[in-house]
Amino acid sequence: MKKGLLQIYIGDGKGKTTAAVGQVIRALGHNMRVFWLSFFKDPKKWGHGEIKMLKSMGVDTRNFVCQHPWFKKRIKKTSARKQCSDVPEFILGLFKKNYDLIVLDEVNDAISADFIDEKEILSVLEQKPESVEIIFTGRNAPSALTKKAGLVTEMKMIKHPYGKGIKARRGIEY
Amino acid sequence: MKKGLLQIYIGDGKGKTTAAVGQVIRALGHNMRVFWLSFFKDPKKWGHGEIKMLKSMGVDTRNFVCQHPWFKKRIKKTSARKQCSDVPEFILGLFKKNYDLIVLDEVNDAISADFIDEKEILSVLEQKPESVEIIFTGRNAPSALTKKAGLVTEMKMIKHPYGKGIKARRGIEY
Repeated sequence: MKKGLLQIYIGDGKGKTTAAVGQVIRALGHNMRVFWLSFFKDPKKWGHGEIKMLKSMGVDTRNFVCQHPWFKKRIKKTSARKQCSDVPEFILGLFKKNYDLIVLDEVNDAISADFIDEKEILSVLEQKPESVEIIFTGRNAPSALTKKAGLVTEMKMIKHPYGKGIKARRGIEY
Repeated sequence: MKKGLLQIYIGDGKGKTTAAVGQVIRALGHNMRVFWLSFFKDPKKWGHGEIKMLKSMGVDTRNFVCQHPWFKKRIKKTSARKQCSDVPEFILGLFKKNYDLIVLDEVNDAISADFIDEKEILSVLEQKPESVEIIFTGRNAPSALTKKAGLVTEMKMIKHPYGKGIKARRGIEY
């Protein structure tokens, strides 16, 4: 990997997390070292399929905050902020560990919900080693972040089975 | 997997193939059986990273037509049509082999370029077993196909490093 970029996947359509997973697989195919940092994935439910697989392939993982902000009634902002308070330092630590690719799955929503301070994340990105590729996913990303990105794709929902009353399916949506 | 759908990933942004790869990983995490059928990927170059990994994880694969239609000068339509002539029958054969998920990577472009007959593909989809999930990727999909889909996401390019003269990078774009 020559010059590492910040890639951001946003939008309301299916494909943001799976695109990041696919990017990890591609990197592993070239013997790169990968860290997968997720937000809001309850390891007992969501993300089970992919995270189990990524771990088995030697990807190091960690999750911050087990509940999704979509269920805001169940999540207190002060509690979520506290759970996320180590995130900037944690990422800076990863920068010292020779990872080629670092994924922050759903981090855009953690920043948009103000669980993580936007300015702190921007400062962390300033310290990214040149060679490291970093991927942020999540519906909405602040414009200060997309400005810093080398690649931004919007996953735009054209059609989704949820609209037809089909619930999330094992092996497909999680 | 309960009811299998046709998922289609279109658009000019990065993330269509990687989202399909991620979907495969998620399915494998639930012990599902997967077939990966690609178009236009020269096994010596593109797709090397992900296809090597998918094979090593027990995914069965096959590629039709090694050259991409973006390089149309080098590819003859009659030759490409001939190379694709077995595709419908091949997919029907897969339907009999108990795969849970079948990916046709870049097939949208093969259909748009008329290397595969749209009506034949529609007829194949009519014969899809209820439980099978099937994913089509590629920039442009005919509307008759998106009509049949249960899920369509457009990967829309907001920003791409190619615009800044950065070439495709090993482990990231292939």
